[in-house]
Amino acid sequence: MSRTASTNEASRGREIWALGVDLGGTKVEVAQMDAQGAIRQRLREPTDVGGGPDGVIAQIARLARALTPEGAPSPPLGLGVGVAGQITKDTGVVRFSPNLHWREVPFRDRLQAALNLPVVITNDVRAAAWGEWLHGAGQGAEDLICLFIGTGIGGGVVSGGRMLSGCSNTAGELGHITIDLHGPPCTCGHRGCFEALAGGWAIARRAREAINDAPAAGVALLSAAGLTGPVAPEDVTAKVVAAAARAGDPLARLIVDEVAGALIAGSVSLVNAFNPCRLILGGGVMEGLPELLPRIEHGVRQAALNTAGEVLAVLPARLHNDAGVIGAATLALQTFAA
Amino acid sequence: MSRTASTNEASRGREIWALGVDLGGTKVEVAQMDAQGAIRQRLREPTDVGGGPDGVIAQIARLARALTPEGAPSPPLGLGVGVAGQITKDTGVVRFSPNLHWREVPFRDRLQAALNLPVVITNDVRAAAWGEWLHGAGQGAEDLICLFIGTGIGGGVVSGGRMLSGCSNTAGELGHITIDLHGPPCTCGHRGCFEALAGGWAIARRAREAINDAPAAGVALLSAAGLTGPVAPEDVTAKVVAAAARAGDPLARLIVDEVAGALIAGSVSLVNAFNPCRLILGGGVMEGLPELLPRIEHGVRQAALNTAGEVLAVLPARLHNDAGVIGAATLALQTFAA
Repeated sequence: MSRTASTNEASRGREIWALGVDLGGTKVEVAQMDAQGAIRQRLREPTDVGGGPDGVIAQIARLARALTPEGAPSPPLGLGVGVAGQITKDTGVVRFSPNLHWREVPFRDRLQAALNLPVVITNDVRAAAWGEWLHGAGQGAEDLICLFIGTGIGGGVVSGGRMLSGCSNTAGELGHITIDLHGPPCTCGHRGCFEALAGGWAIARRAREAINDAPAAGVALLSAAGLTGPVAPEDVTAKVVAAAARAGDPLARLIVDEVAGALIAGSVSLVNAFNPCRLILGGGVMEGLPELLPRIEHGVRQAALNTAGEVLAVLPARLHNDAGVIGAATLALQTFAA
Repeated sequence: MSRTASTNEASRGREIWALGVDLGGTKVEVAQMDAQGAIRQRLREPTDVGGGPDGVIAQIARLARALTPEGAPSPPLGLGVGVAGQITKDTGVVRFSPNLHWREVPFRDRLQAALNLPVVITNDVRAAAWGEWLHGAGQGAEDLICLFIGTGIGGGVVSGGRMLSGCSNTAGELGHITIDLHGPPCTCGHRGCFEALAGGWAIARRAREAINDAPAAGVALLSAAGLTGPVAPEDVTAKVVAAAARAGDPLARLIVDEVAGALIAGSVSLVNAFNPCRLILGGGVMEGLPELLPRIEHGVRQAALNTAGEVLAVLPARLHNDAGVIGAATLALQTFAA
């Protein structure tokens, strides 16, 4: 677009944009997004966790102002934040964020006061689901599940054109559906959760156990992944398993087969319960093992009820690391549009 | 209400009522329901399955007319039907009903033509969930799950004040979430489904296997349930297991313990995924083993995520066998109210 056209558009007051924030325990990213979902500028810093809520609010306010130059043709419509934690829906209070070490922080109100802008707060995973739904692999669908398989497993569910929030705003804890009644313990205290079999941390745990049980096969797995010499347990990660499987290591392949089986079982549960038109798969495990996607698609089609399976498309997430900021900014646009 | 008041109300045209139909493979029930959800009159007959769609439509039309006397103060607002089968949402076509032996029957349009009344069709389990939501244990809630544990397991999910239908109108197939990855086969072709561990047919299967494996313990179980002499495999039902467990038989108690564990695991999955305010449990297994309800409540509170568990109430269904007709009539009232 030429400078003249852009100036004209702005002078007619049509330039609509918002700020999106992805706030985690290690980094905070603030982005300027237009109404078409394009990121125009972004700033990223390590999160000032040590500064507590005051520090983080000052940090976001500074980054947001840097992306809102004086004399900009139009102010942002608002700012949306995806926070790694539990959020009270209508008040934007961060009830608990283990990564930020926050409890009961009235984040929305304090950020709004600091910025003098309307602010909306959601959970980071749900923000990413908003992003994929409206500007990623979910565009145009009214019934979909975004399943993010990273270190843990989380997701967002859109049904009948609405993002489900549930009774206390925690709907979509898809990593904690039971898929193996007698399975291994989960970090949540229960056992056999989807995440405890297919999340990145569980893949690493399974690999460590397998290496302990069969040291020779373990050495082969590690060397297939390029790790030689002494290896600490924490060096054995889902990434190492993925690399070894790609190099053809049989133990790593066995573990990946088990993960595929768990991903199929969990996906079948979700497809039968929610009957989505699209199952969108993202997160580090899916990006590290892209060959899982066609296996999951095939397995789900075979095992889901016909009525649910025949309408289903299984798709990779499209926005990758941008899903969070795009989703948070999109939520701000949706919430504060006149 | 006195006759005068009733006549006055009718003359002011305020009497609002609807017909509800519960259509299964063995019986069909038609009921007259008022706007408060009270059944005023009902008729029940064996379903004329042999007559095909023509026979069943004629049967429902006859029963509906018998409940709509000539000169009634006001005609019904419409008629709702809950059908044991898959229904196309907007057209009311019965895609497939194994119990009625129907495929692709344009049921709504044909019934509407036969009755000269507006008709709405839904699945029988979803109709029952509508009933429990608006006139049973779900009254006033915006986020709930109705889980019916009978021969099979099915349900309905209300989220944000709306009954979820999904991409092809089959949302709520809660009996086919995987809870035991390596578990026993299900009738759907998959394995380890919720229903394959906790549905009535699965309880009967498990009991038959246990009796085969340990004949002496099996004889004790059967006699605790009052069955003596030669027993055919089909005589071993979930009801027999419930009776034997109540009489203190150890094998039956073991089976009931396993069922309780499966019901807890499946309920935890649903509570974490959907975050309902209420989990409403109904169906023949729950009615036959009412002691399961407090066990499930306790187990779910322990194992669900805190954020989901702390807001949850676990309640027994209230409408029992009436849920279907009440729900179908309620759906008609909702659909056809001006």
